[in-house]
Amino acid sequence: MPRYFLTIEYAGGAYVGWQIQQNGASVQAHLEDAARAILGGRQEVIVQGSGRTDAGVHALGQVAHCDLPEGFTPEKLPLALNAHLPPDIRVIGAAEVADDAHARFDATQRAYRYRVFCRRHAPALLAGRVWHFPHNLDIEAMQGAAERLIGRHDFTSFRARHCQANSPIRTLDAITIERHDDEIWFLFSARSFLHHQVRNMVGSLVLVGQGKWTADDLSAALEARDRARGGMTAPAEGLYLTAITYGDTTPDGIPDASA
Amino acid sequence: MPRYFLTIEYAGGAYVGWQIQQNGASVQAHLEDAARAILGGRQEVIVQGSGRTDAGVHALGQVAHCDLPEGFTPEKLPLALNAHLPPDIRVIGAAEVADDAHARFDATQRAYRYRVFCRRHAPALLAGRVWHFPHNLDIEAMQGAAERLIGRHDFTSFRARHCQANSPIRTLDAITIERHDDEIWFLFSARSFLHHQVRNMVGSLVLVGQGKWTADDLSAALEARDRARGGMTAPAEGLYLTAITYGDTTPDGIPDASA
Repeated sequence: MPRYFLTIEYAGGAYVGWQIQQNGASVQAHLEDAARAILGGRQEVIVQGSGRTDAGVHALGQVAHCDLPEGFTPEKLPLALNAHLPPDIRVIGAAEVADDAHARFDATQRAYRYRVFCRRHAPALLAGRVWHFPHNLDIEAMQGAAERLIGRHDFTSFRARHCQANSPIRTLDAITIERHDDEIWFLFSARSFLHHQVRNMVGSLVLVGQGKWTADDLSAALEARDRARGGMTAPAEGLYLTAITYGDTTPDGIPDASA
Repeated sequence: MPRYFLTIEYAGGAYVGWQIQQNGASVQAHLEDAARAILGGRQEVIVQGSGRTDAGVHALGQVAHCDLPEGFTPEKLPLALNAHLPPDIRVIGAAEVADDAHARFDATQRAYRYRVFCRRHAPALLAGRVWHFPHNLDIEAMQGAAERLIGRHDFTSFRARHCQANSPIRTLDAITIERHDDEIWFLFSARSFLHHQVRNMVGSLVLVGQGKWTADDLSAALEARDRARGGMTAPAEGLYLTAITYGDTTPDGIPDASA
């Protein structure tokens, strides 16, 4: 059976996360149900994602693979699946790939965006889409401090206590911090991330942006290799998985691989 | 009693519009209830907006005035009102103004943004916030045609049939059309607009963007002074009232008067 990479957009607020769990609806389960539905309910389909996202986390460019019988084209497949998905989950692209291509193991780069809405008064139109932070943040200070996190480090201080990865060592390729009107966007890219790593790094950078931490404090937290020394975990609702890269490219349909 | 200008942000989806009506919840009624609440329920307060917005239309910078007893500061007033408002209505600024300042009659410029999301597959994260249009649009063609609408015209062809304005003559100061990733934003400014004028102009410009109309077709529609010759009414959910200008300035708290 041909294998397809799907590019998937979702609002995380209604789900327990990407991964199938006993305690609620997951994005993965919806996709597997939709795939089964387009096959007339006759066979199970496994949809393997590039990685998990937590409850409440959004995606603009999650990628997953699945095997389907002959007869679907990359143009029609998203339309067929979307007909069986809730409106807050959309398949926005599909590509036929090699039979042994793997959405998780072949990924060479993952990109996340974290949106902080900085204004005294909460946004009327962005509930569940940003972290509302009612104080100004010093972008230059955060940019300077973020440099301390770039590169290969032991990220224990920014890793969830229940993280299941074998090693706390990761290589962070880039952090970019941009102002967008009332928002500050933190853009992260790496081959892979630890559990809660992005949200914990944002929680710590925000301490720098408030002037509560210096860049040296951030370095000291990193070097301590102790979660208790890292900053708070920023809320899930501001986090977006934006793109997964395979080799040097992203699958068709990903809107913006750079952010 | 001192008079205040309030700057107000709201998501229109849950409301019958700005104006108090018999058939459902309005933004104005929520604000008047909140103002009464901060006075201990002891007196009625009239909140006069710069103009109406229709059901489903959003605002990032609606302005309204009201008279309140001494004792509120422009810093505290939004916090006090927001404590009594639903989360999809936020007062984001307040300014004390002259006793005879009038949110509607003194407005010298109104600015709207219309967001069209152009992609085959609907957006998972922007339901109710954009008009999903599943075809590409030619921005240059629309920009060229939009020039035909600038200036002083009889806008009968782009006016709701039930519009109550005395005259169909308006002066349109500017239309700017910008790409923002998958979205196209139409920015309009004028001293005032007719009922449905922005949505009807967008519906017609989209015909140009699709190649169904030329700029000359748009001119002919304008000159016909016949609503039947104008394009469709674009849906309410893509429309945002972004800013109201008084004299040469906008009240404090308006995030972006230029867009």
